[in-house]
Amino acid sequence: MPDEVPKRILSIQSAVVSGYAGNRASTFPLQLLGYDVSALNTVHFSNHTGYGSFRGFRLTAEQILEQYEGLEENGLSCRHGYLLTGYVPGEEGVMAVGQIAERLRNERKRMGEGLMWVCDPVMGDQGRLYVSQGCVEAYKDIIRSADVITPNQFEAETLTGLTITSLPTLRTAMTALHEAYGVKHVVITSIQLPSHPDSLICAGSTQTPGKHMHAQFWYQVPKQPGFYSGTGDVFAALLLAHLDAGSLAEGGALQIVVRKVLSTLSSILSRTRKGMEEELQTSSTDLDRNEKEEKVRVIRAAELRLVQSQEAILRPPESGWLEPRVDWPEEMN
Amino acid sequence: MPDEVPKRILSIQSAVVSGYAGNRASTFPLQLLGYDVSALNTVHFSNHTGYGSFRGFRLTAEQILEQYEGLEENGLSCRHGYLLTGYVPGEEGVMAVGQIAERLRNERKRMGEGLMWVCDPVMGDQGRLYVSQGCVEAYKDIIRSADVITPNQFEAETLTGLTITSLPTLRTAMTALHEAYGVKHVVITSIQLPSHPDSLICAGSTQTPGKHMHAQFWYQVPKQPGFYSGTGDVFAALLLAHLDAGSLAEGGALQIVVRKVLSTLSSILSRTRKGMEEELQTSSTDLDRNEKEEKVRVIRAAELRLVQSQEAILRPPESGWLEPRVDWPEEMN
Repeated sequence: MPDEVPKRILSIQSAVVSGYAGNRASTFPLQLLGYDVSALNTVHFSNHTGYGSFRGFRLTAEQILEQYEGLEENGLSCRHGYLLTGYVPGEEGVMAVGQIAERLRNERKRMGEGLMWVCDPVMGDQGRLYVSQGCVEAYKDIIRSADVITPNQFEAETLTGLTITSLPTLRTAMTALHEAYGVKHVVITSIQLPSHPDSLICAGSTQTPGKHMHAQFWYQVPKQPGFYSGTGDVFAALLLAHLDAGSLAEGGALQIVVRKVLSTLSSILSRTRKGMEEELQTSSTDLDRNEKEEKVRVIRAAELRLVQSQEAILRPPESGWLEPRVDWPEEMN
Repeated sequence: MPDEVPKRILSIQSAVVSGYAGNRASTFPLQLLGYDVSALNTVHFSNHTGYGSFRGFRLTAEQILEQYEGLEENGLSCRHGYLLTGYVPGEEGVMAVGQIAERLRNERKRMGEGLMWVCDPVMGDQGRLYVSQGCVEAYKDIIRSADVITPNQFEAETLTGLTITSLPTLRTAMTALHEAYGVKHVVITSIQLPSHPDSLICAGSTQTPGKHMHAQFWYQVPKQPGFYSGTGDVFAALLLAHLDAGSLAEGGALQIVVRKVLSTLSSILSRTRKGMEEELQTSSTDLDRNEKEEKVRVIRAAELRLVQSQEAILRPPESGWLEPRVDWPEEMN
């Protein structure tokens, strides 16, 4: 039995030495699921920025492009049928990633091969932009070439100029993303709605040209207390993995894929929370700890238990509570 | 059932975007085996240097130290009970790694915890040094603090000033490494001896103070035609993983660990060779390819099938042919 040709992903994201964020969060789950992952790191920090302090450096747009050119020169770039992109520092960096996506797609086209680009337009969270306005404009430009985008609530609002406050406005925002950018698949993560105070909503939409309506769905996931870095990066990685494994037929498919992703992610978070509680118990004897040290102690303990969650990554647990919803209430006036 | 405390490894090695070398070769097998791996990358290249051309950059000694200091500042460094080090560019870089090892060991000591450092003194291969003489001197200094060293034949010769041409001279070299540097465990990889022209020899030695002889053994492995980048890095990573899992009792233990490592590595290489042959068959239609392109085509095809070898990493296959040898012929005069 001949081995299959390796499935190769080029993943352009941030990297940390310790803990999980960016490529460090995405690579292992994808490798475990059988993908050869080429990781082009856009920043190299000692740890994720949530700690408050970190050391390291960012790559310039030229350095990002240079690493890609090394791949081109050795006939390595065109082997990647999948592109996954996350945090990129600066407007020029974002534009360099857009250029890489275009060059890779053209190179694949000349070979008679396709490319699937999952783009996480990392710009901000919880009402706060952590990139420049120039970055936002650059993303508005480059996501037109993406096949799937995975903004969080704030990023979807930033890209559309709309405010998501309800299921009807969420639906309107997804439709607006299809219409403004021509992206086929949209998944909006971590949505908080006043109508569902104890849940996070995750919603998806597949463009169905010629039909009256896009195929749109939403899931309701119980909120986990605390902040866990890298969950968005794991989400995008698993989405790519299962999108490829599943059929990409019109309608239906995306909601099955997102269900698998949420099931795995929920299991990772439960395990992380359990490990975190144990770690905080065993390390809580020092009463002299100041406020900053206490904050860092909690952040350390909240690093994802990713290598410990192999079973949940390989086989997303059956999650009866994860019911896809395709009912959308009308906006009340 | 409470989860075990994560086993954390700090791995200081090179990194490539595409393919397998340094941290990119070591990280996945260790993660698969349940270790949390913190990867501090010493160089960032598009691909391994065997391609002839590559793009990217090296970290300065200051940049390497700075990333480590970020970990110290957030209480992250001391969580690593294992240190794995490989290629480091430049004499100052090697000394920075020695300094990190010392700081980490002292920090662990203050906590009442130990550290196991597996040091691969990457300096050259096949009779050719690819680092400066200053680097060699720096390694001679820092390996005194290592618990395990994994030089290849040329590196063992460089560190001892001896020439390995036979089983007796191999044995003498291992003893010399214990005596000159005080390192407890020595494993020499990829040894070619005129007496065994179709094999590579891998030999190990555990220092047994107070006893007349060290516990020394050797394995004979069939040569695989071709060059496969990253095998030394996978070897050192698996050695660390199984050394920890196995008992480190005097004598005996190291040879069982090395057998597991050779068994997994041999399986990875067989799968890589099979995949390589298939790839070269399907891509061999272009007759206009020049010599350089042909060379690069072969190198691309020889990238390790690492993510495809999960079974062999998790469960080293039974290898009846891998018989540990503890018989050492006398040197003939």
